[in-house]
Amino acid sequence: MPHAVIMAGGAGTRLWPLSRRDRPKQLLRLLGGKSLLRESYERLASLLDADHIHVITGAQYLPLVARELPEVPAENLFGEPEGRDTANAVGMAAAILDERDANCVMGVFTADHIISPVDRFRSAVSAAFATAEANPAALVTMGITVRGPETAFGYVKRGEPVADGVHQVEQFAEKPDEVRAQRYAASGEYYWNSGMFAWRTSAILDELQINLPVSYEGVTKIAKAWDGAQREQTLRSIYPTLQKISIDYAVMERARQVYVVEMNCRWADVGSWTQLGDVLEADRHGNVAAASESLNVGSRGVTVVSEDEGHLIVTMGLEDTIVVHAPDATLVCNKRDAQALKGLLADVEARYGERYL
Amino acid sequence: MPHAVIMAGGAGTRLWPLSRRDRPKQLLRLLGGKSLLRESYERLASLLDADHIHVITGAQYLPLVARELPEVPAENLFGEPEGRDTANAVGMAAAILDERDANCVMGVFTADHIISPVDRFRSAVSAAFATAEANPAALVTMGITVRGPETAFGYVKRGEPVADGVHQVEQFAEKPDEVRAQRYAASGEYYWNSGMFAWRTSAILDELQINLPVSYEGVTKIAKAWDGAQREQTLRSIYPTLQKISIDYAVMERARQVYVVEMNCRWADVGSWTQLGDVLEADRHGNVAAASESLNVGSRGVTVVSEDEGHLIVTMGLEDTIVVHAPDATLVCNKRDAQALKGLLADVEARYGERYL
Repeated sequence: MPHAVIMAGGAGTRLWPLSRRDRPKQLLRLLGGKSLLRESYERLASLLDADHIHVITGAQYLPLVARELPEVPAENLFGEPEGRDTANAVGMAAAILDERDANCVMGVFTADHIISPVDRFRSAVSAAFATAEANPAALVTMGITVRGPETAFGYVKRGEPVADGVHQVEQFAEKPDEVRAQRYAASGEYYWNSGMFAWRTSAILDELQINLPVSYEGVTKIAKAWDGAQREQTLRSIYPTLQKISIDYAVMERARQVYVVEMNCRWADVGSWTQLGDVLEADRHGNVAAASESLNVGSRGVTVVSEDEGHLIVTMGLEDTIVVHAPDATLVCNKRDAQALKGLLADVEARYGERYL
Repeated sequence: MPHAVIMAGGAGTRLWPLSRRDRPKQLLRLLGGKSLLRESYERLASLLDADHIHVITGAQYLPLVARELPEVPAENLFGEPEGRDTANAVGMAAAILDERDANCVMGVFTADHIISPVDRFRSAVSAAFATAEANPAALVTMGITVRGPETAFGYVKRGEPVADGVHQVEQFAEKPDEVRAQRYAASGEYYWNSGMFAWRTSAILDELQINLPVSYEGVTKIAKAWDGAQREQTLRSIYPTLQKISIDYAVMERARQVYVVEMNCRWADVGSWTQLGDVLEADRHGNVAAASESLNVGSRGVTVVSEDEGHLIVTMGLEDTIVVHAPDATLVCNKRDAQALKGLLADVEARYGERYL
């Protein structure tokens, strides 16, 4: 049976005041009481045993993750002493899995996207696992069926077909401008780059060795020490020195045998409050609510969010406004300014220190 | 020494979600941690002993008032079984005081206005008491120096002067339209009708007997029973039957010897969130905050309110918006809709019952 690794890093600033330094986005319960991490786990658990599911996250989040996913064995939770981007997170997870289950098939999954329906997710992942199983050198990326000229996502251009729903990758494309996005969407030859992958551990480690040799050396050393007494010392002495770089840039765009499996799913990043509004079902005035009790009177385009059971949020006569209630803070923000939250948090820190971060 | 009666009725809908059915406006701590009732008491306590200060309020609020004003003796707190407007509240208080201290001088004061500075308040009240003391038939109203063509207040037109700052009343005028308000303000002959009065108990009771005889009979019967075993029974059998009518309409506009004492104070009703915004000191973008922690970034004309110590409210890019945080509810409202709060509460009740009222 393949293994899955859920990447659950994330700083937790963009969904403030619900997300905090010590409570990142993927642990928020925004959707029907389940966190994005939990949703991610449950999608995979419909396909894999719990002891084949792993999470890599910031070391400080390990207790939260353990509580959120009680089914996952403790040894499947990998903590990073600090974030070194996806090349090293993926590399370290691959190296540890390879130590434990040599040359196994592994998938990499994100924890901060909404993906539905699950059955289509499952069949795409199965196809990706099968491709990796059959071709020991293959790196497989999962490509989301394009639903519009989105400029916020990277794209993958498909090449020759190799099986039903599986193509060679011709090219990775960065987040495009609007003209390009239109062209990509119209061509029918592109997918959205999902950040989800499948491969044999040997395949990804071989490519890492070629394309990012220092990281390869580092993560294999860490992996050898992982299940022994020297784990913490090795991890802390090596991991923070590794170059911050994404797996796409470091490996996928350079590797030799790269395939894309189409995943025909609704797929949404929940990277900001505005995006959450796009994901939830709106009433006829464009208002959405992720709150147990809320009432919008004469409001349009309003997003209301609260995890606080029983706290009522009432809006009246608002337009394109985001209201987020947390137990110790409330954000009320014009939608067009929601992307500037990071700057706002600098102001909050300047005034109140770390208290609300 | 004269007696003071603070009128502290009020339904508590217009400052929702802070004000509630069981927590009316005058008990809110909006301004520097003191409730409007407490502010009202302290203004009077600078002039009178605590045992000469009384409060008349809804019977259900008596425990809250007792806690808010621990200095005031319990027997000075008068509970109405239900609201019957100011003619009956004033009449009952006057009748009880008259039983306890025959023909004393009493003042009537509101609990839901912001009044400053206190020394001017004090000298106007002293002048009103002196007028009532000197003229046993006088009904004295306190008139606020007009500061603009306000259409939300009633007016008092002064007639002949009788002493420094004291005039006969020529006429009471209802809330005017804008043209009239302009004329009143320009004439220099009008005051804002404050709802604050002074008189001898005998003077107001005589006028009540002439102008509202059923209420007079009722409140004198209640007053005779008040300090005995029959209080509750008498009160509950008579008071709810009395005609709902204001003291202005029932008595002041018809009485024979009516005087006005000028009170040259800043005077503001805090009857709505919009008005609270007008009362507080604004930053250079017109934002005001009655909250321990708040931050407005790129917002204009925003009013932020919270009594919840330590709860941070952040607004970004808002205009003319009111944000009110209560422990179990948040209101975010366009300023132009703030007057429609009563209708909103009907919606809240329709959806959630009495839970948030």
